[in-house]
Amino acid sequence: MTSWQPGGVLLGADYNPEQWPEATLVEDVALMQQAGFTFATVGVFSWALWEPTPGDYKFERLQSILDTLHKAGIRVDLATGTASAPPWLARLYPDAMPVTRDGLRLSHGSRQTWCPSNPDFGERSLALVKELATRFGDHSAVRMWHVGNEFGCHNLMCFCDISADDFRGWLKERYSTLDALNHAWGTTFWSQRYSDWADVIPPRTTTAIPNPGAELDWRRFCSDASLRQYLAERDLLRSITPDIPITTNFMVGHAFDGLDYHQWAPHQDVISNDHYLGSHLGQPEIELALSADIIRGLAGGNPWVLMEHSTSAVNWQTVNLAKAPGQMLRDSLSHVARGADTVAFFQWRASQSGAEKYHSALVPHAGKDSRVWREVCELGKVLGKISEVEGSRTQSRVALVHNWDSLWTTDGDSTPSEHHRYMTEVSRWYAACWRAGLTVQGVAPGNSLDGFDVIIVPGLHVVTDAEIANITNAVEAGAHAVITYFSGTVDELDHIRLGGYPGGFADLLGVHFDEFAPLLPGKTAALRSASELVQLSSNASGSIWTERGRADDGTEVLAAYADGPSQGSPAMTRRSRGNGSAWYVSTSPDDASIDSLLAALSHDSGVSPTVRGLPEGVDAVRRVGEQASYLFVLNHTDQEVAVPVIGHDLITGTESTDGSPLLVLAGGVAVLREGSTS
Amino acid sequence: MTSWQPGGVLLGADYNPEQWPEATLVEDVALMQQAGFTFATVGVFSWALWEPTPGDYKFERLQSILDTLHKAGIRVDLATGTASAPPWLARLYPDAMPVTRDGLRLSHGSRQTWCPSNPDFGERSLALVKELATRFGDHSAVRMWHVGNEFGCHNLMCFCDISADDFRGWLKERYSTLDALNHAWGTTFWSQRYSDWADVIPPRTTTAIPNPGAELDWRRFCSDASLRQYLAERDLLRSITPDIPITTNFMVGHAFDGLDYHQWAPHQDVISNDHYLGSHLGQPEIELALSADIIRGLAGGNPWVLMEHSTSAVNWQTVNLAKAPGQMLRDSLSHVARGADTVAFFQWRASQSGAEKYHSALVPHAGKDSRVWREVCELGKVLGKISEVEGSRTQSRVALVHNWDSLWTTDGDSTPSEHHRYMTEVSRWYAACWRAGLTVQGVAPGNSLDGFDVIIVPGLHVVTDAEIANITNAVEAGAHAVITYFSGTVDELDHIRLGGYPGGFADLLGVHFDEFAPLLPGKTAALRSASELVQLSSNASGSIWTERGRADDGTEVLAAYADGPSQGSPAMTRRSRGNGSAWYVSTSPDDASIDSLLAALSHDSGVSPTVRGLPEGVDAVRRVGEQASYLFVLNHTDQEVAVPVIGHDLITGTESTDGSPLLVLAGGVAVLREGSTS
Amino acid sequence: MTSWQPGGVLLGADYNPEQWPEATLVEDVALMQQAGFTFATVGVFSWALWEPTPGDYKFERLQSILDTLHKAGIRVDLATGTASAPPWLARLYPDAMPVTRDGLRLSHGSRQTWCPSNPDFGERSLALVKELATRFGDHSAVRMWHVGNEFGCHNLMCFCDISADDFRGWLKERYSTLDALNHAWGTTFWSQRYSDWADVIPPRTTTAIPNPGAELDWRRFCSDASLRQYLAERDLLRSITPDIPITTNFMVGHAFDGLDYHQWAPHQDVISNDHYLGSHLGQPEIELALSADIIRGLAGGNPWVLMEHSTSAVNWQTVNLAKAPGQMLRDSLSHVARGADTVAFFQWRASQSGAEKYHSALVPHAGKDSRVWREVCELGKVLGKISEVEGSRTQSRVALVHNWDSLWTTDGDSTPSEHHRYMTEVSRWYAACWRAGLTVQGVAPGNSLDGFDVIIVPGLHVVTDAEIANITNAVEAGAHAVITYFSGTVDELDHIRLGGYPGGFADLLGVHFDEFAPLLPGKTAALRSASELVQLSSNASGSIWTERGRADDGTEVLAAYADGPSQGSPAMTRRSRGNGSAWYVSTSPDDASIDSLLAALSHDSGVSPTVRGLPEGVDAVRRVGEQASYLFVLNHTDQEVAVPVIGHDLITGTESTDGSPLLVLAGGVAVLREGSTS
Repeated sequence: MTSWQPGGVLLGADYNPEQWPEATLVEDVALMQQAGFTFATVGVFSWALWEPTPGDYKFERLQSILDTLHKAGIRVDLATGTASAPPWLARLYPDAMPVTRDGLRLSHGSRQTWCPSNPDFGERSLALVKELATRFGDHSAVRMWHVGNEFGCHNLMCFCDISADDFRGWLKERYSTLDALNHAWGTTFWSQRYSDWADVIPPRTTTAIPNPGAELDWRRFCSDASLRQYLAERDLLRSITPDIPITTNFMVGHAFDGLDYHQWAPHQDVISNDHYLGSHLGQPEIELALSADIIRGLAGGNPWVLMEHSTSAVNWQTVNLAKAPGQMLRDSLSHVARGADTVAFFQWRASQSGAEKYHSALVPHAGKDSRVWREVCELGKVLGKISEVEGSRTQSRVALVHNWDSLWTTDGDSTPSEHHRYMTEVSRWYAACWRAGLTVQGVAPGNSLDGFDVIIVPGLHVVTDAEIANITNAVEAGAHAVITYFSGTVDELDHIRLGGYPGGFADLLGVHFDEFAPLLPGKTAALRSASELVQLSSNASGSIWTERGRADDGTEVLAAYADGPSQGSPAMTRRSRGNGSAWYVSTSPDDASIDSLLAALSHDSGVSPTVRGLPEGVDAVRRVGEQASYLFVLNHTDQEVAVPVIGHDLITGTESTDGSPLLVLAGGVAVLREGSTS
Repeated sequence: MTSWQPGGVLLGADYNPEQWPEATLVEDVALMQQAGFTFATVGVFSWALWEPTPGDYKFERLQSILDTLHKAGIRVDLATGTASAPPWLARLYPDAMPVTRDGLRLSHGSRQTWCPSNPDFGERSLALVKELATRFGDHSAVRMWHVGNEFGCHNLMCFCDISADDFRGWLKERYSTLDALNHAWGTTFWSQRYSDWADVIPPRTTTAIPNPGAELDWRRFCSDASLRQYLAERDLLRSITPDIPITTNFMVGHAFDGLDYHQWAPHQDVISNDHYLGSHLGQPEIELALSADIIRGLAGGNPWVLMEHSTSAVNWQTVNLAKAPGQMLRDSLSHVARGADTVAFFQWRASQSGAEKYHSALVPHAGKDSRVWREVCELGKVLGKISEVEGSRTQSRVALVHNWDSLWTTDGDSTPSEHHRYMTEVSRWYAACWRAGLTVQGVAPGNSLDGFDVIIVPGLHVVTDAEIANITNAVEAGAHAVITYFSGTVDELDHIRLGGYPGGFADLLGVHFDEFAPLLPGKTAALRSASELVQLSSNASGSIWTERGRADDGTEVLAAYADGPSQGSPAMTRRSRGNGSAWYVSTSPDDASIDSLLAALSHDSGVSPTVRGLPEGVDAVRRVGEQASYLFVLNHTDQEVAVPVIGHDLITGTESTDGSPLLVLAGGVAVLREGSTS
Repeated sequence: MTSWQPGGVLLGADYNPEQWPEATLVEDVALMQQAGFTFATVGVFSWALWEPTPGDYKFERLQSILDTLHKAGIRVDLATGTASAPPWLARLYPDAMPVTRDGLRLSHGSRQTWCPSNPDFGERSLALVKELATRFGDHSAVRMWHVGNEFGCHNLMCFCDISADDFRGWLKERYSTLDALNHAWGTTFWSQRYSDWADVIPPRTTTAIPNPGAELDWRRFCSDASLRQYLAERDLLRSITPDIPITTNFMVGHAFDGLDYHQWAPHQDVISNDHYLGSHLGQPEIELALSADIIRGLAGGNPWVLMEHSTSAVNWQTVNLAKAPGQMLRDSLSHVARGADTVAFFQWRASQSGAEKYHSALVPHAGKDSRVWREVCELGKVLGKISEVEGSRTQSRVALVHNWDSLWTTDGDSTPSEHHRYMTEVSRWYAACWRAGLTVQGVAPGNSLDGFDVIIVPGLHVVTDAEIANITNAVEAGAHAVITYFSGTVDELDHIRLGGYPGGFADLLGVHFDEFAPLLPGKTAALRSASELVQLSSNASGSIWTERGRADDGTEVLAAYADGPSQGSPAMTRRSRGNGSAWYVSTSPDDASIDSLLAALSHDSGVSPTVRGLPEGVDAVRRVGEQASYLFVLNHTDQEVAVPVIGHDLITGTESTDGSPLLVLAGGVAVLREGSTS
């Protein structure tokens, strides 16, 4: 298949000139050239313009846009426009509007108002895609296809009868027989046993706790239903334009958890992501880094496209913070450090009306006389200076093992504690790696762990036997794994692994816990060191969760509960296994305690930070190319820092040497070329 | 047309004798005469009694009530009874029940269970009004018509198909063409472009953010749909009884924002209002004053009717506070000070059953042996003593410019910060005027500003070119205006005014801001004085909002941000313009900083407080009549105060002179006749 | 009729072997015998297994289970299985699915997905019961029938049209005429008067506050609709197996308030209860005791069955706390102390899948190698040692008068304060009795108060004239009653009792209050002693509520408000009446003030604690049998305590004497045989 060769690190954006008078196009292109803008996603929300009445296509304006952009040397990522259907879809096909869990048929009037299982939507959308690909597939501006947009963002789930039928089909494929389904869902409990496929429905609102097996399969089905629409568009595009790479923009970040991207990633020619900072986050730079490291994992370690982020505020949070001066550049280069080779934004010009008119853009309401525009131009210059990093790969020896099944079940109903949230626990362990200067990469539990010396497994609740074996094998082969509470508890059917917690990992870890004992909010359990291996402070503690049990012979207890419901039980353990070691943590420790454990584990594994002696709040990430390696140093503090690294700063042109450490301005970034690579 | 001449300051209430045995009527009238009760609103919820089965009218009891009240000299405000339909309406016309945004057809069983666009309701209600007007329009007791009741309180919005059709009709009238509608709503964004009127629907629940232009027009339409019902009843009444003044009771206050009363006021013969204190309010006396000053603005500065307030607790808040001893009198006279010539309550006698049985009344459950009844009798006496103030006009030189479009958009979806609430900001600036002893009057942005030397424009988000010109002209002519953040940002289509914030006011103010930078809850930005004009304390700060930008040449920066996201940008500016000046505030400053700015502005304008040297917590308002002026002094503190004023207290009969200041008891009120007016 | 003779204090559980392979049954029985397990509830959720397709019954597995249990000497409580219908019910009878207040027809997929008024459900469920009773009614294992399960837990209310019709029928029976209904509901207010029965509907979602009379009758109807299903099953069972006692498990506790168990209790052969601790409760042992004392009241003071509680955590709370070591035994014996003669659990074996897989069980996921299993075995031993207490009766001289009408109205809409919650107030007074060492028994207001010297009447809002007379008579006869605010305010129609608060109790109490004056959250009103009878601390205060009024001549004011909205009014009063006394409390005092008042009241009444000099946190309860009395001493503290009691500890075999007080370990329990009873 095809691949995406951006030709440098691109600056781009969603470009929606239809919102403006036609004459604005000329002005836009002049501004784009001033800013070093080289990549435009066109047509994401243009279906209603392209097909104003059913079957009557109007592409004149698109033709003009593509021609103009091409003349200006701007690469186009052409959207199929299917994310948001025109109002007439609701009139012609009322059944295509999604239905909520409560049975409400939603109305059009926003975006993504369509049911992923609806065949009429499918037909209409593919007709558009065919028309578009036929007419514009050979346009020289078109360098990438953008299928739909942010799949699942607002229409992830539809509970209509058509979806119900689709769900049944999906289940039949998965389970073949009703007996297998009844077993999987544990329908003996609460008299839910099915004797007829017709009785199987989506988990619509019911009287009390829904069946958790049905919920998990429903989440999987919903991801797959959207994926099917993606694949249908992709296959059609590929049949018409086999040489144009195809992507759809993922949404790995704090605000979305609907799609199992491990299933989606193999079907992308290019992995692309939308990422937005959360106003509620204390250190959004860490969440950003986590998102990018997961995306790079989905891309198999290869470069990827940052399809959307924002020059400043968004419009859809409770409080929409403006970015600080310099922050846009630093955020952009944080993504590049972690593998992004294209830095694009939503959107080129701030809307004058509509739902997102308060979303920032490259050209703000105030126009060129604005901080944002000046910083956009600076970003364009910087990306030009570092263009040689394109194609290099970010280095990481630390794997973060995660999956969506664990997220969906952990955050579901009727667990030991609703305060244990999967991504919160993942984020806490990720943040400890970030603080320790370790670059992490996301990995699916069943994927290869080769090259990873440290394996972080936070709360990996749903895990198959094969995945357990995969992790076990990696440990045997020499990796050092830390596994935390609630991991391994259930299999892929969400059935408890009997015989003691943490279920499937108990043998690898050499522990036997017989009871979960969560803590009320605000409560903690004191931890005391039980080994010199991990030094805990005198006020070390765990929160949210504890467990009652013991370590097997041959397993070292590193820390134990000094009070609380599990007093005396192990809180941290370590077992040597093959050439590696397996560590268990049965609570959510305070940050310092996680840091202590991670330090001991890193020491065991011989994995050291990318840069030793890095000041707090400064992030360093290395990309390695065929000619050279590049060290990104990102100063997230408001103080200038001196960093002991050696190389040539592509941005400023200065050299850092042994005797002359790199100075990075408050909030600033350096990109050092470190010399030729092996 | 007709006008309302109360003949003194009346004491009255909603009177619902149907809840009681017939014999109670006689007892009631005796009690009314004991209390000095002179005004009764009759029949607000009597439709089901008047027309127990469809078309079968039963007015015997009403006849008896009116006859009895008239004999007792009590003026009757006769309700049309259309606010609450009988249960049979739902059976005969199921489509008349309102439908929620989520598509739920509501059931009868409460009040106002009807869709404002429903023609069957319209027909049935007008039939009742015709019957009532024909039979009782010449009854001597009837001195005013009370159309419906609290329009829009519970049935403001109906999303049914009939309403949808009605909405389309309203939009066609407003925009004529679909192209104009598409432009207005910015439908190019998110592929919402309409190609058929049939596709236009109310903003029913959809997948994500609804179209904000549609939302704004929907709010306007809902206000108009209720207004149409009012007008239909009014026109019918007027055709039958041209000499009886007509009103409907507004709900200007903290608990309701559904109707654009600037559109409603011109159609009233008498402006009347319902006002209830909020348990959640720190200084409810200020909210009360704001409500009354807005109502007087709607009445063009003329006297108005306080149709409902409460003798003590209400029943519909989370905690329903009883009034403190003396508070009912003070609240009542606060309204009178601000122009009320009738002081009425809900309701005469506390219900024994039904939804509001815990709402206070003039006759409480405990009967005459009660604090409330004793205070009612005292109020009756006091209103008798001050009857000469009837017809005089409250004086104000300070305009508060406000509109409902700004409220609806500011408090809508997807703004820079949900913590910026329109009425909160309006209230904060109003409260500063109250503290400064300045009497304010509400004004619509397009109405005459003659006679107002100070103009307060807090967050006037939606504003037309003509309204901007109106305010600009007033400044040129000598007024001193303060305009605060988010004002002028959009035009009447909710389209951003491009080129820098605050949009339409940027030129008048001489400022250029290019970015909003709101603050998280609990965060503040330090302010420092940049001019001697406004003296800020060392810990002055703004919250909720800041802006990044600069002052133009010729505009004085009064204060700037000392830290926070907009550090260095102007927080307060002033520009001389014609004979006046225009001040801008780009944040929500702390109270003391608002007070400082207001003091400087007042100084510029030469507007001084009604009474100089007023103790804190004491309110003074002047009404000016043809024969004399009256100074109301309201002591909201729990201490006796001495007030340096001169006049004859109508309540106590004492004289205050230069050497003998007025003493007002803790929580007490004085009404001074100040002498003949010019 | 029949009665339940457990033959010792039984250990039991819900037993659901269908969730496991058939071979597990053998292993289970061996474990049961090891643990001393003697009582199994079978088939609660087995309908879908017993009748997998409509009309096709499959009882082979049940037969085998019953045979096996019987051989092992385990008594079976056989469930009718009707609580949870199979999925096919929804397909055959879509109308049988319950409808929410908002009109949503719920889907199957959880439990109790059926409308209590649906005739098809009724027919199908009775057919099953008939089949079951016919086939297994003579099986020697079957010792009790378990009708349904936790009636009303999730399907308490259905608002469908069939339910509406059923509700109308219920109302016609209650009121006979529409006039009576209109009077009862106060429909004159808000124009709600009915002229046709067809217009009367359940209180479906409407525009604003629903009619409170309709709400109250709806709550009563819902309780009765479930009761009708119970009675239908019971009558059928009784006709087939007249000698087998019948029960259904109540849910008296913090999490459910839907059924008026005073109406249900007379129809039970055995009173049984499910009780679960609440993680949110500060002292769950007190809530447990309250639940048990109410249940014993429902059982007329006789022993009862603890049908369900948990060995450790549940799964359906926000945080599901594990029990501390020893807590299960102490909780179990707390129930036994208060009259339970059977201690059963949900469930035998922790599920591997389904909605409650994280609910604890007797056999946990970890199997026998677990704390829980070891404690289950210990519990079995202890219950064996104390088997002689079976049949003895718990002693109490303190009545807690309560009803569900007061709960439903107090916690309903539009009261003076939503912060006054009925069960919170009941619990606070109950807790004071607990602290004082007084054993309490729940009593319905109209039931005999013979033998109770102290009567606690917290917030008994809805009360009939006859009930007032019942309490008054008890006082006249020598009882000492404390009645608290909002009591007696309305009659059984929810109509205010006019003339002053507390309405129907004002005469007994000799007080006249004319106004409720609730307090905002966080606010208090200071209380000062006004009599030597009750000694209040200098910082005594009330919260939530105060009242304005006075004591009549002959009524002693014990405490008055020193500040706040009711300053100067009485907060506590006492009036001698006949041979007894009547005390009133017009606020919710702090704990110490309640304790002071209760101490004075107890002194008046001559009621002393079960054990004098009991350490704080230790509970002592006496059961009296024909041969001996038994003193249960429950140490809820984490310290060993010495308790001055005399007797033979059935658990340890040690004797306590005058000189050798009983030592009870931290968290431990003693059960003393005190010697022969008169």
